[in-house]
Amino acid sequence: MEKARIGVTGLAVMGRNLARNLARHGHPVAVHNRTAARTRALVDEFGDEGTFLPAETAERFAASLERPRRLVIMVKAGGPTDAVIDEFAPLLEPGDMIVDGGNANFVDTRRRESALRERGIHFVGAGISGGEEGALHGPSIMPGGSAESYAALGPLLEDIAAKVDGTPCCTHVGPDGAGHFVKMVHNGIEYADMQLIAESYDLLRHAAGLAPAEIAEVFRTWNTGRLGSYLIEITAEVLAHTDASTGRPFVDVVLDQAEQKGTGRWTVQTALDLGVPVGGIAEAVFARAVSGHAALREAARGLPGPPRAAIADPGFADAVEKALYASKIVAYAQGFHEIQAGSAEYGWNIDLGAMATIWRGGCIIRARFLDRIRAAYEADPRTPTLLTDDHFAEAAGDAQDAWREVVATAARLGIPAPGFSTALAYYDSLRADRLPAALTQGQRDFFGAHTYRRVDRDGSFHTLWGADRTEVTA
Amino acid sequence: MEKARIGVTGLAVMGRNLARNLARHGHPVAVHNRTAARTRALVDEFGDEGTFLPAETAERFAASLERPRRLVIMVKAGGPTDAVIDEFAPLLEPGDMIVDGGNANFVDTRRRESALRERGIHFVGAGISGGEEGALHGPSIMPGGSAESYAALGPLLEDIAAKVDGTPCCTHVGPDGAGHFVKMVHNGIEYADMQLIAESYDLLRHAAGLAPAEIAEVFRTWNTGRLGSYLIEITAEVLAHTDASTGRPFVDVVLDQAEQKGTGRWTVQTALDLGVPVGGIAEAVFARAVSGHAALREAARGLPGPPRAAIADPGFADAVEKALYASKIVAYAQGFHEIQAGSAEYGWNIDLGAMATIWRGGCIIRARFLDRIRAAYEADPRTPTLLTDDHFAEAAGDAQDAWREVVATAARLGIPAPGFSTALAYYDSLRADRLPAALTQGQRDFFGAHTYRRVDRDGSFHTLWGADRTEVTA
Repeated sequence: MEKARIGVTGLAVMGRNLARNLARHGHPVAVHNRTAARTRALVDEFGDEGTFLPAETAERFAASLERPRRLVIMVKAGGPTDAVIDEFAPLLEPGDMIVDGGNANFVDTRRRESALRERGIHFVGAGISGGEEGALHGPSIMPGGSAESYAALGPLLEDIAAKVDGTPCCTHVGPDGAGHFVKMVHNGIEYADMQLIAESYDLLRHAAGLAPAEIAEVFRTWNTGRLGSYLIEITAEVLAHTDASTGRPFVDVVLDQAEQKGTGRWTVQTALDLGVPVGGIAEAVFARAVSGHAALREAARGLPGPPRAAIADPGFADAVEKALYASKIVAYAQGFHEIQAGSAEYGWNIDLGAMATIWRGGCIIRARFLDRIRAAYEADPRTPTLLTDDHFAEAAGDAQDAWREVVATAARLGIPAPGFSTALAYYDSLRADRLPAALTQGQRDFFGAHTYRRVDRDGSFHTLWGADRTEVTA
Repeated sequence: MEKARIGVTGLAVMGRNLARNLARHGHPVAVHNRTAARTRALVDEFGDEGTFLPAETAERFAASLERPRRLVIMVKAGGPTDAVIDEFAPLLEPGDMIVDGGNANFVDTRRRESALRERGIHFVGAGISGGEEGALHGPSIMPGGSAESYAALGPLLEDIAAKVDGTPCCTHVGPDGAGHFVKMVHNGIEYADMQLIAESYDLLRHAAGLAPAEIAEVFRTWNTGRLGSYLIEITAEVLAHTDASTGRPFVDVVLDQAEQKGTGRWTVQTALDLGVPVGGIAEAVFARAVSGHAALREAARGLPGPPRAAIADPGFADAVEKALYASKIVAYAQGFHEIQAGSAEYGWNIDLGAMATIWRGGCIIRARFLDRIRAAYEADPRTPTLLTDDHFAEAAGDAQDAWREVVATAARLGIPAPGFSTALAYYDSLRADRLPAALTQGQRDFFGAHTYRRVDRDGSFHTLWGADRTEVTA
């Protein structure tokens, strides 16, 4: 009986497309689904794309895999993933590997990896980005887990991943939860990216008074430059689209309430635990939340705003491009800071430049920009922040006048630009000689005796605020 | 043998002062500490303030309490709290109550309350704000737990709480974790408040070019107006203080790295779970985080900024006052939104106006402002946001020109003002007719087939972006 090189269970659209991608690359792939009809449908519809070995039961599915078994589960994160693991783990043998290709929380992945490792089974939490199309034609893949499992699994994953300049968008991220952690931050950065694009559009629309079709042209132009990326490209497509039923710009008939699935939120919550400031991602998550609070917005609609005067300056679109680029640098610097901090916290030893490399293709945030990040980490793998890389520092410096003017304009015209604003504030905070945090510490010492340090000597100190205000060593 | 009306175990400074406060109000109080020396020291030093019943063992401590026993634990949050509960619970009888006066996470409080309830013991998670001085002279107390436990405990707590206009700063917040939840949000608001004050100081210092002593005078003036509050008052004190060893302004010798203990972070993490935008609190937490990343700041110090030109406008301080007041309204609106959402999520039925009432005294954020919030909820207990209350809407409207100018000035001069900026962006987002979230939803539909809703009819829709771009019902 022919054995499959790899198996996929869970044949909803992502799992189905991943199995097809494997088969198309010449890898015999076992396929299984809780309801067998879906398995049959896959083979009926796409059986000619390669070698599929359908299995109706878990036992037959496991038996159809060559050793060591490579079993990919593509089911919903959370309980369903645990249920599938519990079902298949008893059918596996030491050295076999389970790959979770879903959007699991890295904390769950760490728990699962640890539990399965005790049974001799490799657990690989693999972030997969690129949606349905990516899964079929080449996603960006971020696998965590043991080096041993990557040796057996990596070649297959690299084979089906997107390629940029011949380099696969897949590499071994690090132990246990590292892959899902990096995928989480990827999604958080995607939130920030989308929010900055939304603010750019809003400013061009309401400050510069451009129509959606005109703004589509602006984005098309930007897409040929340093901002060139999948998200900028599809922004132009969405803005250029006309709603067939009304003849109005598509963007004007879409309800302005953005939804979210949770990875952006996780990114911020995790950053808070790690002490990493990620204002760009947080403001993006909050902006979606605000948009969805319909009753709140309805109640607040009458609040006074400033008169809206259109910006006649023909250079305004260029200024927005600069603000967008500079803010994007900040958002990515924050995201990479989070990966760096997570890597240090959990001992993952993640190669930051390699993460930029595998995001260059296949995933939603793919962009030529990422090649700059790769180069920055190549130049200095230990840089504490991307902002100090020569290219990015120069770009931010060159952009700053425009960036400041755009933030000021948004504030004056009453157009919300929380992403641009927080990015600029972060930039100015990092480069500040002195921060007012000294006052904050002084207050904390006043009301809570929390002590403070001094600029001129070591130690912790407390001022006797309620008494004669002498200083004591704490 | 005389019985104590209430007992306190854990006699570090907060526990000791709470016990003294109880004794001073005529309540015989049993006192206990893991190391008995501390118990003896309390009685030796403060025994004449009231009736203390020292106990050297847990058994004697429990035995010295009248029924139903009221046992207050004042130990570190987390493991130590669980350890003390495990030690004392077996010594209690049904109807007795354990009060956790520490800064517990409300999730832990819910777990503990549920576990003890099964044993017939009331568990009261009580937020206590006001620091050492508050504990001794009258804190703000936010007790959760059963109504039955509050009937037995409330009179004592109200007796020792701060009073404002004769009203005690203590009320029954709601079931299980409600008290610690509200205390958490209180602390989150405190973070936001302090950040806004820090930004005000920074702008007066670096934009207006005022010296710390001059800024102290500005805060003193503000303290006589609508901003009058404990935090504004102590800001003036801290800024007016001169460091004895150098003769320099105190604020200039304090290291500008602000620390934090975690409740601000919890507030943001919880808000993210609840889908409540709390940018004001998040930016405050991030600002402290940024300040503490010394290596990052050192590396970024050379990044280019704008030339700093001092603002000569004599009205600038007034503009900052307006920006501060308006931003403060937003921060509180967000915090109360979080309490409202938590209350709905957990079925706590929290009286929002009552929370403002018990924060008017005893705690760090005590302020005349809170009386306005109390009045707003009295006028409309179901208002979706404080921002639409007549007084606050008028104040924000009146402040907005100045607010916008201050945010614009900060951006142009390179002075970080993330708190002011996020507050203004929130205000402008809420009142916006249309948000660019429509574009975000369009993008999500494009790359992930996440569907969208329309402004002109019900249902979920998807555009076939990869095909002929017709719209289908999802």
